[in-house]
Amino acid sequence: MTPLLQKLIMEFQFLPGIGEKTAQRFAHYIFSRQTDHARDFANTLLEALDKIKHCEQCRNLSETQICNLCSDTRRDETSICIVEHPSNVQMLESTQSYQGLYFVLHGALSPIDGITPTDLGLHHLDTILATKPIEEIIVATSSKVEGEATAYYIFDQFKDKVKVSRLASGMPIGGTLDYIDGQTLQRALSGRSLIQDD
Amino acid sequence: MTPLLQKLIMEFQFLPGIGEKTAQRFAHYIFSRQTDHARDFANTLLEALDKIKHCEQCRNLSETQICNLCSDTRRDETSICIVEHPSNVQMLESTQSYQGLYFVLHGALSPIDGITPTDLGLHHLDTILATKPIEEIIVATSSKVEGEATAYYIFDQFKDKVKVSRLASGMPIGGTLDYIDGQTLQRALSGRSLIQDD
Repeated sequence: MTPLLQKLIMEFQFLPGIGEKTAQRFAHYIFSRQTDHARDFANTLLEALDKIKHCEQCRNLSETQICNLCSDTRRDETSICIVEHPSNVQMLESTQSYQGLYFVLHGALSPIDGITPTDLGLHHLDTILATKPIEEIIVATSSKVEGEATAYYIFDQFKDKVKVSRLASGMPIGGTLDYIDGQTLQRALSGRSLIQDD
Repeated sequence: MTPLLQKLIMEFQFLPGIGEKTAQRFAHYIFSRQTDHARDFANTLLEALDKIKHCEQCRNLSETQICNLCSDTRRDETSICIVEHPSNVQMLESTQSYQGLYFVLHGALSPIDGITPTDLGLHHLDTILATKPIEEIIVATSSKVEGEATAYYIFDQFKDKVKVSRLASGMPIGGTLDYIDGQTLQRALSGRSLIQDD
């Protein structure tokens, strides 16, 4: 095995879930008649790394200074939804049930990993609140400890200025009680809503 | 999602076993604080694609015209082992039980996929046989249909010039009869050897 091949196999392993065996398989696959694909891929990756930045307003990934969503004048500027990752924006958009603005944290508060409010760009939110007619912040961080802590921090920072809400926790649609953990059940119970006649 | 990110996710899927979901995960992972690793990786991949060629003698992957194994004068030049993939050379070398030369086919004969003897570089073998004191060709292609066909083709081409042998088929070490398929058992039976006193 050549030194460059060894280096390539080592560097392949920065990807999540890719160990030495898979990296070897990838490398050997590339050099068995897939070199053109691999070259296109490497060039696209470099181009993406060069051109994709964070939107200056919502911090979502964008090839332009202000992303498509932020520059779309049809969006409802009275609500802003705070998510951990760019992929979360896509998921929310795919539901077609939210028309407001977004703000991407690129993580969640985690003192152990040294991730502070500044790392999450939370100071940008002040600017947004000052310039847009925001009435409600919807916190859509994860239900993990870090996500919950982030949600509480945001609530604490902005509760005096605007409404701060949190996505509901509870049973997944199609789920049964047998497969739900106690904490989720507790949340589902405390967040119950009255069944109403339409 | 930006167009470049979509392109990257699409091109990631040229790798074996990587579908859309995993490609999305990779892309989002890269843009969450892994851009430096990704840039190093892309540059290494381009460098490897530029510099790694086939050794002019054995066709193994090499950064030099003639690879390390072929230019090693301590190797036994009376035998040459024919394998399908560069990874096979590594595996054989790791057993430390073979000291001869190698020849890498980069595939196996497959009329359906349009892979001919020329694609496998089999004409190079003539040159090697003419210039090296080869006495035995050891065919170490796979036991799949294509590997068997290739082995037979090589036998047919070179049987008049040198000995042509094939790796033994049979029970894997540590295997039990219960888990072996009929064909392997048949081969193990026909290839049986006498137990001898040492």
